Amino acid sequence: MSKEITSRSEDYSQWYNDIVKKAQLADHSAVRGCMVIKPYGFGIWENIRDQLDKMFKETGHVNAYFPLLIPKSFLSKEAEHVEGFAKECAVVTHHRLMNAPDGNGVVVDPKAKLEEELIIRPTSETIIWNTYKDWINSYRDLPLLINQWANVMRWEMRTRLFLRTAEFLWQEGHTAHATKQEAVDESRMILDLYATFAEEYMAMPVIKGIKTANERFAGAEDTYTIEALMQDGKALQAGTSHFLGQNFAKAFNVTFLNEHQKSEFVWATSWGVSTRLMGGLIMTHSDDQGFVVPPKLASLQVVIVPIPKPNDEIDEVVTKIMADLKAKGITVKYDTDKKNRPGFKFAEYEMLGIPVRLAIGKRDLEKGVIEVARRDTKEKTSQALDGIADYVEQLLEDIQNNLFQKALNYRNEHTTSVDTFDEFKEILDSKGGFILAHWDGTTETEVKIKELTKATIRCIPIDSVPEDGACILTGKPSKQRVLFARSY
Amino acid sequence: MSKEITSRSEDYSQWYNDIVKKAQLADHSAVRGCMVIKPYGFGIWENIRDQLDKMFKETGHVNAYFPLLIPKSFLSKEAEHVEGFAKECAVVTHHRLMNAPDGNGVVVDPKAKLEEELIIRPTSETIIWNTYKDWINSYRDLPLLINQWANVMRWEMRTRLFLRTAEFLWQEGHTAHATKQEAVDESRMILDLYATFAEEYMAMPVIKGIKTANERFAGAEDTYTIEALMQDGKALQAGTSHFLGQNFAKAFNVTFLNEHQKSEFVWATSWGVSTRLMGGLIMTHSDDQGFVVPPKLASLQVVIVPIPKPNDEIDEVVTKIMADLKAKGITVKYDTDKKNRPGFKFAEYEMLGIPVRLAIGKRDLEKGVIEVARRDTKEKTSQALDGIADYVEQLLEDIQNNLFQKALNYRNEHTTSVDTFDEFKEILDSKGGFILAHWDGTTETEVKIKELTKATIRCIPIDSVPEDGACILTGKPSKQRVLFARSY
Repeated sequence: MSKEITSRSEDYSQWYNDIVKKAQLADHSAVRGCMVIKPYGFGIWENIRDQLDKMFKETGHVNAYFPLLIPKSFLSKEAEHVEGFAKECAVVTHHRLMNAPDGNGVVVDPKAKLEEELIIRPTSETIIWNTYKDWINSYRDLPLLINQWANVMRWEMRTRLFLRTAEFLWQEGHTAHATKQEAVDESRMILDLYATFAEEYMAMPVIKGIKTANERFAGAEDTYTIEALMQDGKALQAGTSHFLGQNFAKAFNVTFLNEHQKSEFVWATSWGVSTRLMGGLIMTHSDDQGFVVPPKLASLQVVIVPIPKPNDEIDEVVTKIMADLKAKGITVKYDTDKKNRPGFKFAEYEMLGIPVRLAIGKRDLEKGVIEVARRDTKEKTSQALDGIADYVEQLLEDIQNNLFQKALNYRNEHTTSVDTFDEFKEILDSKGGFILAHWDGTTETEVKIKELTKATIRCIPIDSVPEDGACILTGKPSKQRVLFARSY
Repeated sequence: MSKEITSRSEDYSQWYNDIVKKAQLADHSAVRGCMVIKPYGFGIWENIRDQLDKMFKETGHVNAYFPLLIPKSFLSKEAEHVEGFAKECAVVTHHRLMNAPDGNGVVVDPKAKLEEELIIRPTSETIIWNTYKDWINSYRDLPLLINQWANVMRWEMRTRLFLRTAEFLWQEGHTAHATKQEAVDESRMILDLYATFAEEYMAMPVIKGIKTANERFAGAEDTYTIEALMQDGKALQAGTSHFLGQNFAKAFNVTFLNEHQKSEFVWATSWGVSTRLMGGLIMTHSDDQGFVVPPKLASLQVVIVPIPKPNDEIDEVVTKIMADLKAKGITVKYDTDKKNRPGFKFAEYEMLGIPVRLAIGKRDLEKGVIEVARRDTKEKTSQALDGIADYVEQLLEDIQNNLFQKALNYRNEHTTSVDTFDEFKEILDSKGGFILAHWDGTTETEVKIKELTKATIRCIPIDSVPEDGACILTGKPSKQRVLFARSY
């Protein structure tokens, strides 16, 4: 199977498409820009979702559900928001079809035109803040810490499976607070939560930072972001958390009586990650043989292949191994299919990225060993059957750690500090990756650099050390380096 | 709080609305017919969803995700399906808004008209079978056992929270099989799964049966249903499972090569339950004091209220109880809020339907006891602190069983066999409920009875005993009684 994959060096973009398709993660659909998430891909998304959901709940959040459709007029209520979101979106104008007068299929019933058009949510701040107006009266009603798992839609012109699709799945948190500090703290806490999830579960190192005014979410006072580096040297914005100030509270007139019976506008945050994370997962770890998935997110962690096919002796040993692995909470499958040969199965599991593959035949049995292949390094070793479950448990941890370390090494090797614009351009074109450089703090310069190089400021890193310097483009003074990259 | 609830005897419909609102389950939204599911209500839906999802996976199903939007032309491909579903639905005609020329908000950009209109899925058979065409080639690709959790939309004219809303959440299973028998077995297995879930988790007894041709899903060969009886004597269709024959395979040209290399059309099923189950849950168990939720679906099973407020001694005892309960997997909250008095808290938890309430004060402590109140019967007893966790664990089971038994008794008392049309009408108007009566098997008679009485055939019960009789309307011969009721 792997020969059907284009190599990364040959055509990175085609390699990505090949992985998504051959590893059965997703497919294009009959509707332009909308994807079908296939069962194997969806199983991994379920693991991402369940783990994040657990982390949200552990930090006091609850789930709710708000309408898919948003009245058109809502989008105009927050001045910046409308510019950012009200443009390319799916518009519902009618609520009925009728049999075509010519008897050929169905047509829109012109009598069923809506008085006000409805938009399929591109994000839900407006409908949610319109709802919060009814839910919030007093400081006792605050904070509201609500999350929603939902589908959203943005009419993208150029789409790529997972990375940029018209419809995608995501979670969107929308919280309401009595004080500015509490809202800022919430947006920062979620940023940390996203970073923890990305690094500990996706094994994808990220840089936490603040977006520049130019890259900020439409309607936010501050947008925090986690930025990851893909294997082609381009950055991926993997999650954002917004401090919204009182912008939406003012737009929807959401006030509360504080402890002194004084009316104040509510403070807000919103934050989200989406099925785009699947794209990040693929581009962080996968190789020319197929998908590589970190054990903590794998829907199947271990597969056992009998050599050349199942028999009573092998079955007996495998049954015990499976029971031991399952007792440890490890997911395992025994592939007893007799139609396909071991070599075919090996290639298939490699393509799917199953972290650990065990293979056992007659000779292994005689020697009391089993072959263990790890997907990340493709190393194969022979291990004693005795204690194999413990060995595999430790190996899954090692693979998880190794994937993270490998990605971190790649990022460290592809993060360059530069001091001149020539150097900046040279690095961008030769090795790519993150570039730390001084910037004069103006949108004008930021836009100019983008025009000249297609690189954008991914963020102002939170952990950056203050340092006096000169802007690479204008030479004007700068107090710290910011993170540039070309990006998805 | 409970005084704000209309009693069931006074106005059942208003009582229902009051429960939904006062128990913080759901709210109307700014978009006609679309609801907001509030955190407390959504927590219960999450429990419903998680349990069903577990049962689907245990029976070999996997989840996937298909597009929200369906090309208009797809709906016309299955002749009956289009009649049933292509009419009242949300139609997307444009993909862009623009600033209004008069500077006042945004308007639909007339240049962004779609070539073909898209429909927000009212159900997904068409888009899924169009996809299966690419996934199925050989008998080796079968069966496909796929489920999807999704939002769907049907433009209902008269809506009621949970029971009938324009947008609702549901799961839709769509399976593909090599043989007719396998597909029939699947649809029956799912029917049993739904019934088990309804009875064991929702504590809601159901009658399993087959729909008449007239009540069948548009495009199905057979529709199986579970029918529950609400406290006002009306039936609720709680879940359906359809044997679709080869109708969708033919409409979308989905064939497979069988083991003898012969091409055949694929056999199909589809099946679903929705947030409508929340309405069934409410109307099966709740009372004039508020919502009543079976322990197995409660998002909070036990609440502990200190009398009159928390102090060190009480805290110490409660901490131990909470640890013991949590160790048993029981969800528990200690209400340490000092702003509200115990009486207020009691009324609130009664309204929310928390199955067990524990209350403990100084005197209880001295006596080594704690007050235990169960929501279902409103009984209060004093129990020894020693062993209280075991007692509560058993009590939660008792409540679950009692709720089911109570609902079953109600249904048994409200299921009447009648032999004449006069008796039929009399029972319908006096006590309501299910009526078992003979019917001549024609759609004409069925429709006539509906016109005359508003009662419909809920199903032909699967467990019904063959019995010769005469149709209550026409006197023509009948081989078995069918189940009539007025319904939601």
